[in-house]
Amino acid sequence: MIGRTHHCGELRSEHVGETVQLKGWVQKRRDLGNVIFLDLRDRSGIVQVVFSPEVNKEALETAERVRNEYVLEVEGTVVARDARTVNDKIETGTIEIHVTKVEVLNASKSLPFQIEADTDASEDVRLRYRYLDLRRPDMQETFKLRHKTTKLIRNFLDEEAFLEIETPMLTKSTPEGARDYLVPSRVHHGEFYALPQSPQIFKQLLMVSGFERYYQVVRCFRDEDLRADRQPEFTQIDIETSFMDKEDLLSMTEKMMAKVLKETKGVEVSLPMPRLTYDEAMNRYGSDKPDTRFEMELIELSDVVRDSSFKVFTSALNGGGIVKGLNLKGGASKMSRKEIDALTEFVKPYGAKGLAWLKVEADGLKGPIAKFFEGEHAENLLSAMNGEEGDLLFFAADKAQVVFDSLGALRLKFGKEFDLIDKDAFNFLWVVDFPLVEYDEDAKRYVALHHPFTSPKQADRDLLATDPASVRAEAYDLVLNGYELGGGSQRIYEREIQEHMFRALGFSEEEAKEQFGFLLEAFEYGTPPHGGIALGLDRLIMLLAGRTNLRDTIAFPKTASASCLLTNAPSEVSLDQLIDLNLSIIGNKTDKVEV
Amino acid sequence: MIGRTHHCGELRSEHVGETVQLKGWVQKRRDLGNVIFLDLRDRSGIVQVVFSPEVNKEALETAERVRNEYVLEVEGTVVARDARTVNDKIETGTIEIHVTKVEVLNASKSLPFQIEADTDASEDVRLRYRYLDLRRPDMQETFKLRHKTTKLIRNFLDEEAFLEIETPMLTKSTPEGARDYLVPSRVHHGEFYALPQSPQIFKQLLMVSGFERYYQVVRCFRDEDLRADRQPEFTQIDIETSFMDKEDLLSMTEKMMAKVLKETKGVEVSLPMPRLTYDEAMNRYGSDKPDTRFEMELIELSDVVRDSSFKVFTSALNGGGIVKGLNLKGGASKMSRKEIDALTEFVKPYGAKGLAWLKVEADGLKGPIAKFFEGEHAENLLSAMNGEEGDLLFFAADKAQVVFDSLGALRLKFGKEFDLIDKDAFNFLWVVDFPLVEYDEDAKRYVALHHPFTSPKQADRDLLATDPASVRAEAYDLVLNGYELGGGSQRIYEREIQEHMFRALGFSEEEAKEQFGFLLEAFEYGTPPHGGIALGLDRLIMLLAGRTNLRDTIAFPKTASASCLLTNAPSEVSLDQLIDLNLSIIGNKTDKVEV
Repeated sequence: MIGRTHHCGELRSEHVGETVQLKGWVQKRRDLGNVIFLDLRDRSGIVQVVFSPEVNKEALETAERVRNEYVLEVEGTVVARDARTVNDKIETGTIEIHVTKVEVLNASKSLPFQIEADTDASEDVRLRYRYLDLRRPDMQETFKLRHKTTKLIRNFLDEEAFLEIETPMLTKSTPEGARDYLVPSRVHHGEFYALPQSPQIFKQLLMVSGFERYYQVVRCFRDEDLRADRQPEFTQIDIETSFMDKEDLLSMTEKMMAKVLKETKGVEVSLPMPRLTYDEAMNRYGSDKPDTRFEMELIELSDVVRDSSFKVFTSALNGGGIVKGLNLKGGASKMSRKEIDALTEFVKPYGAKGLAWLKVEADGLKGPIAKFFEGEHAENLLSAMNGEEGDLLFFAADKAQVVFDSLGALRLKFGKEFDLIDKDAFNFLWVVDFPLVEYDEDAKRYVALHHPFTSPKQADRDLLATDPASVRAEAYDLVLNGYELGGGSQRIYEREIQEHMFRALGFSEEEAKEQFGFLLEAFEYGTPPHGGIALGLDRLIMLLAGRTNLRDTIAFPKTASASCLLTNAPSEVSLDQLIDLNLSIIGNKTDKVEV
Repeated sequence: MIGRTHHCGELRSEHVGETVQLKGWVQKRRDLGNVIFLDLRDRSGIVQVVFSPEVNKEALETAERVRNEYVLEVEGTVVARDARTVNDKIETGTIEIHVTKVEVLNASKSLPFQIEADTDASEDVRLRYRYLDLRRPDMQETFKLRHKTTKLIRNFLDEEAFLEIETPMLTKSTPEGARDYLVPSRVHHGEFYALPQSPQIFKQLLMVSGFERYYQVVRCFRDEDLRADRQPEFTQIDIETSFMDKEDLLSMTEKMMAKVLKETKGVEVSLPMPRLTYDEAMNRYGSDKPDTRFEMELIELSDVVRDSSFKVFTSALNGGGIVKGLNLKGGASKMSRKEIDALTEFVKPYGAKGLAWLKVEADGLKGPIAKFFEGEHAENLLSAMNGEEGDLLFFAADKAQVVFDSLGALRLKFGKEFDLIDKDAFNFLWVVDFPLVEYDEDAKRYVALHHPFTSPKQADRDLLATDPASVRAEAYDLVLNGYELGGGSQRIYEREIQEHMFRALGFSEEEAKEQFGFLLEAFEYGTPPHGGIALGLDRLIMLLAGRTNLRDTIAFPKTASASCLLTNAPSEVSLDQLIDLNLSIIGNKTDKVEV
């Protein structure tokens, strides 16, 4: 039995001469016949261990049967390496261990892929052998970062007098919002729990309970069709406060984020963070989560082109739409005609019927719509667009939302493709003054953009009865590098406003009671003014780790079809289990279209 | 708008003369006509605020319509109280606030029960209005304690280089263990996730991944019939380590618990904690989680009574059973004949067919079986039992398990009834060397007492093939004041031992693969020696808070039928939701017997 005096990655020249005991995995093996070199790896890093007949013959014999990823414990002497064998690439590269004793704790089969930072294994193979994937140094670093970040946030909130309070996972299904994951009850026939989409109702109840400052790092669930940056279960930093106004909450959140950036990345975030209203964000970036790491803002052209002869523009304007432009500086030489034409397809999913463009050349505007912009019209357009020789100008004319979505997406595409984004930047900003409600064409009624307990802005309260669509919410999203990191709001706590809100949403008093009865009842027993925010931990870690795939920040993630390739969940269960739950499965497996 | 300069509970004589702004709830109201006294409460405590016409007439008028649990913000001056109005019962009792300005932030209806430490409201009412129950000072204290304890544990583990890593909630159902909560998949027809009973498999996989030290404060789920100290969802402090032997793990856990006790209760726990083997614990206390806050151990009498003429004893011994006694010191005068006879009913559920007893009086043993114990027999019995005048002796003779269970339960009953327990004590101990397997009469095979990955003790490995029942496990339970606080084990990491284990459990190679395939496969890629422990956080908080009901430590708990009386979960869901999941409900509600 060999103990452990050090970790592999911490040995340095200062340890030369010491006898050390190490445990770890064989990262690499070089057999020079009479000498065997192994790279021994543990969580702290890698050190070279050397087996030779001069030092210990028995150990050398053991090393002969050792292969990659065997688990070893070794005892040996720390020896300085020759100048010519020093390895600058690893932190322990000035020394090596001459092994006097070794035990094989466990063997390993040949691996499906190598344990190294850059793997060319497919993601499916990585997920199938997740336990090996997690051995790779970049994955180890990501989970150390995740631990550190979570701890920083907990410590920060603790110092701000927040209490972490746990809320139920088995709770009640509510009709509003995304699709719930359900959990059948065995005891209550035909009844179900729902896994929480967020602890929204419970955190508000905790404010009614007088806890004043609550937080939780909590798992949430949404049974939605997944995208690259969605998982069926995700972790959220959930915060709710009483008696704290919006300014205090935003400023506290900013300080928390600045602390995280400082201590994990050494980045100073300058505070206060910029704020954009929802309208500004849409108008300038075509997005409610703008990536401000590069400029290229959308340019308002409605007034500039109103009297042009280009019908596409004028008929959009006459139909209540808008015209906006995007200037890809120096883009004229970067994109072929074919590439430009292909962009029409790119903007189609956003509802755009086409994409007009112009090149700015030495002798004027060029391109299919150049003939509509001559003389003063061309000058005005160029001036509005800040167009210079070599620029490539794009235009969208349609309903505002279509213009925002198309040009917003195009902006991001150009930002990535033409490498306009400062990858070392961490650009935070708040988007505020969201609309309180939006019209749901299917339901033929207004629905809450956040949830029905979001407070309208004080100044807009009177509009709730007359013009709900124009009411702004006291709601705020925190955006980082073009990702929505989280969002929050001040909540309605006065019964009268809540009733107005329900009326605006088309709820009868009875319906409101049926859906939110216990919360409404709670609100009648002395509810303090309160508000809160929830931040996506997975996404925060993804951005801090410089990754683009949410799955790389979750130890055991699900695929896009919500499967775990490692454990094979979900899976069939026994008939006894179904009978216990009074359930039967309807239809055939093949009836179901895979999503 | 009034701000907040202080919290109610922090004001002292040193603040006299200051103008302060406070927010909080009206705890109590005394209206003396021209003066109104309110107790204003926030999370920090209570302060008296006074409204009078001399100070501010308008504020007094507002106070006239204020009732209990209204939410107020007030501004006023801190004034020293007269010596005769000082209130020693509250920390702010030397001062009061003379209110110059008040705003009513919200009103409150009359409460179903008062917000005070000792409530006589039924638990159902408390759960129905949980948000009010949580306002009560003892509940507030419990959740502060829970926050503090969790934070202490996290900080301790962080200092010990543990990483907190999150594991999935939507995972795979496994046939061994308790009943799973299932979650139907919408995408995969007829398939289900299971909520984790513990992250056991994932934490072992994290060891295979080389994380070496993992922990998580994690929600776990068991769909079992509930008792007072069970909840369908509970929180566990989950720990797993590689390359750490049992002694190191136990010692680290002891240090962690000592730190918690020191910093939450000011109690010094002397280390190392006592250890009992499973056999000792059963023999001395009739329990594998003995409450050692009082003595009254079970006394082994098999040899003492072997040649007695009392057939109940001798036939039990001849049948392979044992005879044990319990001495209730001074009990002869404490229990009537009727009370003693009633104990026969008490031990029946444990399988005991009767309960023999004797009183020790000045002139010898008295009682129905006294005639069997005379002369030397009586002397030997008295000597073994340490019987003195006034003692009441009880005896059980049966199979060992029945004797343990009956006398163990009787010991606890006496401990409580006769107030033998030191309520200020926190008695930790380890129970070690549990049996590895037990025989399942229904399944007609051995089943793992913990789980099939628990390592047998090194010395007992050879017995695995020949006599599984006698193999001891490298498993350990941490016991506090008679409650099992948690348990852990060293895990099997060598393929050969794992195969022996599965054979001992009667698994074919195929069955093992089918049930635990992915874990077995993972074990083939360089698995380090590892082990871990899981501690019940809810139960720890219950014991630290000096409570006996687990529900008092959970913000929104479930009842014994796994319902939430506040939200009414579980509940019926819409037909659309069921169709999405390809499920239908079988049978009628009334078919189902309520558990």
